[in-house]
Amino acid sequence: MCGPGSSGGEKKAMSIGQEPVEIARLLRDVREKRPLVHTLTNYVTVNDCANALLAVGASPVMADELDEAADIAALADAVVINIGTLNARTILSMFAAGKKAASLGRPVILDPVGAGASRLRTGTAVKLMGEIPLAVIRGNVSEIKALLGGAGTTRGVDADVKDLSAGGLGGVAAAAKALALRTGAAVAVTGPTDIVTDGTRTLAVRNGHPLMSRITGSGCMLSAVTGAFCGAAPGRAFEAAAAALCTMGLAGEQAAGRTAGENAGTGTFRAYLIDSLSLMDEAALAGGMKIERFA
Amino acid sequence: MCGPGSSGGEKKAMSIGQEPVEIARLLRDVREKRPLVHTLTNYVTVNDCANALLAVGASPVMADELDEAADIAALADAVVINIGTLNARTILSMFAAGKKAASLGRPVILDPVGAGASRLRTGTAVKLMGEIPLAVIRGNVSEIKALLGGAGTTRGVDADVKDLSAGGLGGVAAAAKALALRTGAAVAVTGPTDIVTDGTRTLAVRNGHPLMSRITGSGCMLSAVTGAFCGAAPGRAFEAAAAALCTMGLAGEQAAGRTAGENAGTGTFRAYLIDSLSLMDEAALAGGMKIERFA
Amino acid sequence: MCGPGSSGGEKKAMSIGQEPVEIARLLRDVREKRPLVHTLTNYVTVNDCANALLAVGASPVMADELDEAADIAALADAVVINIGTLNARTILSMFAAGKKAASLGRPVILDPVGAGASRLRTGTAVKLMGEIPLAVIRGNVSEIKALLGGAGTTRGVDADVKDLSAGGLGGVAAAAKALALRTGAAVAVTGPTDIVTDGTRTLAVRNGHPLMSRITGSGCMLSAVTGAFCGAAPGRAFEAAAAALCTMGLAGEQAAGRTAGENAGTGTFRAYLIDSLSLMDEAALAGGMKIERFA
Repeated sequence: MCGPGSSGGEKKAMSIGQEPVEIARLLRDVREKRPLVHTLTNYVTVNDCANALLAVGASPVMADELDEAADIAALADAVVINIGTLNARTILSMFAAGKKAASLGRPVILDPVGAGASRLRTGTAVKLMGEIPLAVIRGNVSEIKALLGGAGTTRGVDADVKDLSAGGLGGVAAAAKALALRTGAAVAVTGPTDIVTDGTRTLAVRNGHPLMSRITGSGCMLSAVTGAFCGAAPGRAFEAAAAALCTMGLAGEQAAGRTAGENAGTGTFRAYLIDSLSLMDEAALAGGMKIERFA
Repeated sequence: MCGPGSSGGEKKAMSIGQEPVEIARLLRDVREKRPLVHTLTNYVTVNDCANALLAVGASPVMADELDEAADIAALADAVVINIGTLNARTILSMFAAGKKAASLGRPVILDPVGAGASRLRTGTAVKLMGEIPLAVIRGNVSEIKALLGGAGTTRGVDADVKDLSAGGLGGVAAAAKALALRTGAAVAVTGPTDIVTDGTRTLAVRNGHPLMSRITGSGCMLSAVTGAFCGAAPGRAFEAAAAALCTMGLAGEQAAGRTAGENAGTGTFRAYLIDSLSLMDEAALAGGMKIERFA
Repeated sequence: MCGPGSSGGEKKAMSIGQEPVEIARLLRDVREKRPLVHTLTNYVTVNDCANALLAVGASPVMADELDEAADIAALADAVVINIGTLNARTILSMFAAGKKAASLGRPVILDPVGAGASRLRTGTAVKLMGEIPLAVIRGNVSEIKALLGGAGTTRGVDADVKDLSAGGLGGVAAAAKALALRTGAAVAVTGPTDIVTDGTRTLAVRNGHPLMSRITGSGCMLSAVTGAFCGAAPGRAFEAAAAALCTMGLAGEQAAGRTAGENAGTGTFRAYLIDSLSLMDEAALAGGMKIERFA
């Protein structure tokens, strides 16, 4: 997500033909359907998530009190669970909203922020993953590996991470596939090159710019936007996750170009990233996405 | 609030003479008195609310813990209660702060965000309305109708909303008047055309721009800014609410103009909206407000 | 922090020779070491704090649940405690994180937001100060005086503040020195002219711009950035606090210059402030800092 370069270890990639056009069409679906996305997320980047959702054409709603979480989830087209600033109270609401949405056949997206950094985070993410049928899991490689290794004991994560850490992008894809096969979710792993897989099909996305990691919220916004695409394309979580990766990454490239043209910094970049999301159209997305099969 | 067009059904409007000048003077009062506005609000747009308050010349304070809510309210010139991300803990603080302010004769503003979307929201908003003498209620038409219908059972809202949904702007004004007469508060309803009424006098405000609904926080900022105007003009809640509607709407128009001039998007618009609030002066406001009696 | 002018009562100041160069070098240390700063802060400006930390080159982490606060603190290079929207739950986490960090010899920074405004705030800040060895206390003069007078009864603060309120910048420095000697922390007091002292050495910083007080978050960002400098220069809290004051103040001056050049307002200024932090380099900082001994 945050760099043009690859992290090595890639296998042979091939063109994916008409798929960019089909994936780009999902942006039109978001704009037409205006999915309501119930977002249970951290208070650091929640404003960015709401503005990113509005920018791509979705409608955000944030509600994290147990007494209404399931009610709001029942109204929504998708539920996004981001554990960035989880606490005992909001964890209960995450389970309630996620279970309600899943029971209604609505897509649930999990962003396991910081899984691996504390027992609470790893344990909560693993439990969410175990109890809620997820449409998409979106994290960085450390978080994805923490989820893979964390089933059972949180302390065991570190050793498992070491086992998995070799292999460059191939290793990332292997971890993502393993998690997808275990959970039934599409798994999107962001990094210098992004990977998205449903366990069978795997794509590499080379959009994005290093400035995205110099502001807070790039990952959280991506997860929220993934919820928007899933909400507009139910049953197509893999394609929706790919479309979200390309949309955010291309918006980051465009925003970085404008920022550099003005010799500006990360505050300007942050505003321009939302600008690009709001101005993105299907044709620009189809033309700008850098996506390929990763076998 | 979010569009130049009207939603139909208007009755005859007439010029309101010198009132624009008098309403615009309230902005000078805010700048001179720098009212302290205690804002119990949601964590999605709280930063926007604080910056909007500072931009118009007020001083924001956010404090939502029961153990200090009344203490802080006692220091403030106005209290704004926004239920956007309410929870069991902060609801108690909203009541404590609101009651303390009202007991001291200070204006309390209610923004019933999402009333009608869950029992918790409708019930809490109705209870706040019932127990705290309010200066202004500021919401969209769905929220206002939920408050009207929600007295008693939350489930009853839907039917009442249907009863009220006909009639275009006239129907909106009728609902607002009914709520004003029931509560004694001025009621400000935002939409393509805004309505503000104290039950006797009713004004239509045609400022605003559709971009305001493409970012999060326009409504929350308006409610916060309404608190600033009320705090600077105690006892004149109707005029203060009208001034806040015009100020936010005109700022939105100005920001949209700059944004369009640069072919920019919603991230830029968001910054420019705060810019316009901070640069607004009495003369520009008097000249730009589009306000008329609505009989 | 927020004005070029002084507030009167200064004593003779003298050049401090090579110290600007040494202080500016600390910015390079931040960029090279990328300290992880665990920030327990308010939900109003938390996004600004995260972006300010990233802009200066640090890595932010926000985690305020008791069940993980100490775990995250143990990973961090510095812990910043900001009581801006404290509540019963997060207060416990502040103590847990602060004590854990201090036990590991890591710097802890306290921003006693609003101390003096409620018993809860004054009492909590005084207790944090009493139980956690602090590296830096950063506040405005009212907050610093509340901490000085607040040991014991919160109600007693007002009288003590009156005792201390005379004397202009000399009075500010005297209060800061008294607090530094009592706590062992470096004390940074922001105002038209900033003061930083370790009880023995005292510096005045004349960077900054009045626009900084027209947006929310300038003070919170400064405290967060102080954490970044402390995390990159352990054991040098006084120098780190001085470097943070100069960096934020100079960034504010640069951002104000750009804002004025475009006839823009406070929304633009806010983005440019982060821009300036992200673009600041050692040479610009050494050349632009206005720092002098204050005896």
